[in-house]
Amino acid sequence: MRYSRMFGKTSFEAPHDADSVNAKMLAQGGFIDKVAAGIYTHLPLGLRVLQKINAIIREEMNKVSGQEILMPALHPMELWKQTGRDATMIDILYKTKASGDRDFVFGPSHEEVVTPLAAKYVRSYKDLPFALYQLQTKFRDEPRAKSGLLRGREFGMKDMYSFHTTVEDLDKYYEEVKAAYLRVYERCGLRAYVVKAGGGAFTDQYTHEFSVITPAGEDTILVCDSCKTAENVEIVKDASKCSTCGGPVVSEKAVEAGNIFKLGTKYSEPCNLYFTDSDGKRKHVIMGCYGIGNTRMVGTIVEASHDDNGIIWPLSVAPFRVHLISLGKDEAVNAAAEKMYNEMLAAGVEVLFDDRDESAGKKFKDSDLIGIPVRVVLSGRTLEKNAVEWKLRSGGEAEIVGISEVLKKVADL
Amino acid sequence: MRYSRMFGKTSFEAPHDADSVNAKMLAQGGFIDKVAAGIYTHLPLGLRVLQKINAIIREEMNKVSGQEILMPALHPMELWKQTGRDATMIDILYKTKASGDRDFVFGPSHEEVVTPLAAKYVRSYKDLPFALYQLQTKFRDEPRAKSGLLRGREFGMKDMYSFHTTVEDLDKYYEEVKAAYLRVYERCGLRAYVVKAGGGAFTDQYTHEFSVITPAGEDTILVCDSCKTAENVEIVKDASKCSTCGGPVVSEKAVEAGNIFKLGTKYSEPCNLYFTDSDGKRKHVIMGCYGIGNTRMVGTIVEASHDDNGIIWPLSVAPFRVHLISLGKDEAVNAAAEKMYNEMLAAGVEVLFDDRDESAGKKFKDSDLIGIPVRVVLSGRTLEKNAVEWKLRSGGEAEIVGISEVLKKVADL
Repeated sequence: MRYSRMFGKTSFEAPHDADSVNAKMLAQGGFIDKVAAGIYTHLPLGLRVLQKINAIIREEMNKVSGQEILMPALHPMELWKQTGRDATMIDILYKTKASGDRDFVFGPSHEEVVTPLAAKYVRSYKDLPFALYQLQTKFRDEPRAKSGLLRGREFGMKDMYSFHTTVEDLDKYYEEVKAAYLRVYERCGLRAYVVKAGGGAFTDQYTHEFSVITPAGEDTILVCDSCKTAENVEIVKDASKCSTCGGPVVSEKAVEAGNIFKLGTKYSEPCNLYFTDSDGKRKHVIMGCYGIGNTRMVGTIVEASHDDNGIIWPLSVAPFRVHLISLGKDEAVNAAAEKMYNEMLAAGVEVLFDDRDESAGKKFKDSDLIGIPVRVVLSGRTLEKNAVEWKLRSGGEAEIVGISEVLKKVADL
Repeated sequence: MRYSRMFGKTSFEAPHDADSVNAKMLAQGGFIDKVAAGIYTHLPLGLRVLQKINAIIREEMNKVSGQEILMPALHPMELWKQTGRDATMIDILYKTKASGDRDFVFGPSHEEVVTPLAAKYVRSYKDLPFALYQLQTKFRDEPRAKSGLLRGREFGMKDMYSFHTTVEDLDKYYEEVKAAYLRVYERCGLRAYVVKAGGGAFTDQYTHEFSVITPAGEDTILVCDSCKTAENVEIVKDASKCSTCGGPVVSEKAVEAGNIFKLGTKYSEPCNLYFTDSDGKRKHVIMGCYGIGNTRMVGTIVEASHDDNGIIWPLSVAPFRVHLISLGKDEAVNAAAEKMYNEMLAAGVEVLFDDRDESAGKKFKDSDLIGIPVRVVLSGRTLEKNAVEWKLRSGGEAEIVGISEVLKKVADL
């Protein structure tokens, strides 16, 4: 992609209401555009990051036999009356009326749709277990909507729901998904802790959150770095019990990056989701549910990985792999840069080519802000040596690399 | 994928309210599940088809330099007041109130978001032209919601918006997109006509629709097969003028499968989208917009490609390439089928493996209904010959193919 043609350029004016690093850098870098509090457009750069995160999530959910579906956002109110969440979640529900005066809810979650769906197909224990997931938009009328992608009113989520014959089978699958979630964070360049948490509006039982430590976090968790356990301060009665090894416990700010719940029969009871067991008895299906906010993840990565000059994208989710920059107006330099750009495209390298007529200072500043893993610069000075300047966004000195070696070095990243 | 583990099985009971072939076959085949009138869940089989259509659409939009973004579904009402469509489209708008009593609309279209977005970045003629597109859900309170995927209240759409300095530049790009749209239909196995159409609520100017001829169509178009021109009966004053060659004109039922509009300055005026031209003058940006209903396309393909027994998916959008079926309880047959299934997976072949303990009749009936392009059957009789039975869903006789040749034959499809 040529930066000169790309929609959504950098801006060196921070949004006046940016209350967090991700809000500031994602807006200034041209990744997102704010439409209203908690409501954003993902611009070309930002959508590329989101799609990479989505691909990682899909791969890991497929590995634990999740089957992808897509449920609607519009839910008839009757479904929510059935579970009683029309009342318990009333503060965050977006409601609307359709023609004929029927009431609808814009889904803040999908238990009310997926449980009746399962009830249409599940008859016997032979139909179980299975897990369904989707990447779908959620709508929550969030009074504390934060600037940036950490707490939105409209946001993307991967939500998975699992269906089992026994609590033991749920327990086993729950641990598999916990491991899959930790792989998702690791692949996205994040270090996440599993912490026990309160259930909130979604369940009465204990739940687990995945927390990524960053100064901008809205949660406080108690972490023991010796035994790697952590607990949310909200549910801790005795801080000394947060460490299973008796080591020192530190309070840290963290961002919630996902959560998983053992639902049991909380939804299968009101939604009449039964199965006939091998003993011939009719029983309620045991359920679990598992959520990762994928748009929030974009913001979380920025909170966890940046410096004063901008974002530092992990390679796995970076919008491009290489930021190619040509400096000056010299025709030979520009021709060499064009040639390298075309060779990279031909080799399937994801490259952003800053072909604008701008100063070196402006191009370097933009490049730091956007945060692509490798900066490759072609100038009169480097061309004299038939070389480029190669610099990693994550740090270290710039080095001079021969033009003929660049493609190999990119492949080796 | 093993059919025994797949969520969403076939059903031989048609939905009581199925008013079209696509509603009936997609529901019976386990592709979709109805949540309310015009509101559906895409099950694993159906989502696979949708994702293939999406991939084709993305490729063709990228070829005409479209840049993908993702705009929100929740729009502040003020944006719609600015263009006056809060009044002109009031009948189909889903409205809601957010905390603080602010009014929002769930987007039936996105001109109200994309035009102010462009206004934030466009300054000079050098910033133009460009085109932005998204694959996003649309919400329209449609009183005539039809069963199936042809006319929904919540549906998927690819909408693209282009921005130009002159009408001539728009005209040129409009023709490029027209050609790209025809490639999308062709790649999805559809034959589409371009027809002039009325503007509806979206524009005051003339527009073009893409119509696919099928008996279930809700539009009537007048087609001259000699010169391949077509017009919508709604705007035709003199039927003899529908043919540019003077040939006979036939009235056909068609499904609208997309439409494109020259918007001119209809939205850039109320949304204050200006640019400074090379002559130094401040002018309104000239816009075009281009829509394809991607979920509707799933239904359109079924309407256009089926027989009495079920769907006949074109290879390009089929949920799987091969439907592998093992017959009987013979251990050698089952072992051979398992081996072939694993070889296909290893070779990257998309295969649905019907490994259930069901009769040949039931498996064949399901296979016809689901409509995967090739049926490969392993039975005691075929195994004796170290072969399979190979049959195309689109017709023709079954043939006996040696087991060792199956993979090559699949690759050659």
